[in-house]
Amino acid sequence: MDKLRKHIEEVTPLTDDEFEHIKTFFTLKRVKKHQYLSQEGDEAKFEYLILSGIFRMFHLDGDGKEHIVQFAGENWWMADYQAYFKAKKADLYITCMEDAEVLCLTLEGREKLSAEMHKMEHFFRVKLTNGFVALQRRIISLLAGNPQQRYEEFGRLYPHLMQQIPKKYIAEYLGVSRETLSRLYAK
Amino acid sequence: MDKLRKHIEEVTPLTDDEFEHIKTFFTLKRVKKHQYLSQEGDEAKFEYLILSGIFRMFHLDGDGKEHIVQFAGENWWMADYQAYFKAKKADLYITCMEDAEVLCLTLEGREKLSAEMHKMEHFFRVKLTNGFVALQRRIISLLAGNPQQRYEEFGRLYPHLMQQIPKKYIAEYLGVSRETLSRLYAK
Repeated sequence: MDKLRKHIEEVTPLTDDEFEHIKTFFTLKRVKKHQYLSQEGDEAKFEYLILSGIFRMFHLDGDGKEHIVQFAGENWWMADYQAYFKAKKADLYITCMEDAEVLCLTLEGREKLSAEMHKMEHFFRVKLTNGFVALQRRIISLLAGNPQQRYEEFGRLYPHLMQQIPKKYIAEYLGVSRETLSRLYAK
Repeated sequence: MDKLRKHIEEVTPLTDDEFEHIKTFFTLKRVKKHQYLSQEGDEAKFEYLILSGIFRMFHLDGDGKEHIVQFAGENWWMADYQAYFKAKKADLYITCMEDAEVLCLTLEGREKLSAEMHKMEHFFRVKLTNGFVALQRRIISLLAGNPQQRYEEFGRLYPHLMQQIPKKYIAEYLGVSRETLSRLYAK
């Protein structure tokens, strides 16, 4: 739970009492490589804060083709947000790419924490702000970027993921073939 | 300013005194059809709440081709969020598609309101949550949807925009040709 405190305190300082209360809302879950946290049709009970490991979130289309929405590593928050916030069935898969630990937070817990503590409402707003900016950039990149630009942007934003994730998945994320990706790496 | 109060009170009730304070943070701006609120290279001083009118937000690529990130109508919030939140130069254009009125809010004002009033921090968190979900859906739609699916989703989510926006721009937003769009309309 030390990691959780450090993570929140990057946004707002906490007293010991405050953190004691906050941590009661989170439960730890260990996840094995290739295990799924979410599959299409599931309820999205939790938002996850990743303490260690890397995840891949994707949509499966009618032909069984995987479309990667995002990767997520340490200190990232992750969920099928439509399902989580709007109480719909998930249509995203979340799978673990190496053994991992995550903290789980229910929507009820998230809302209660936010209502009780202005600090936590602020913390979640800041995290959403950063996430919102990242998604707006991803849309622009998908609409307007060519493979070279998407590759460079990914490398600039997430240099550690570039090292850790199999090239096959990076190619899928960027929407390019393995061959194109190899050419981009070679440059 | 009545519209602003009604808009905020859809999320959280306000006293008269609270609203008197809140409204001092907003300034009204009238915008003419074809006028720009943001162009590439501008500072993004304001986030805009649209009181009336319709806007188009887009990125211009190196070849001068327009890529539409979003449309925005009444009661939508809109900004080049990377530029606004991260104090970078804008790389999005925002243009008015019919005469409009917007309320302008600086980042400093937004942060001050959020810090002073837990209610307003909550309001902005709720708005960001809804925006975040919409962007995650748009990414999935861009990655996995075919033109037919994208068209149906757009019509389902934004039936009023479908009526009001020239087909040329809807085709661009969906990433399809005018001919494909006409075929989809005809179905």
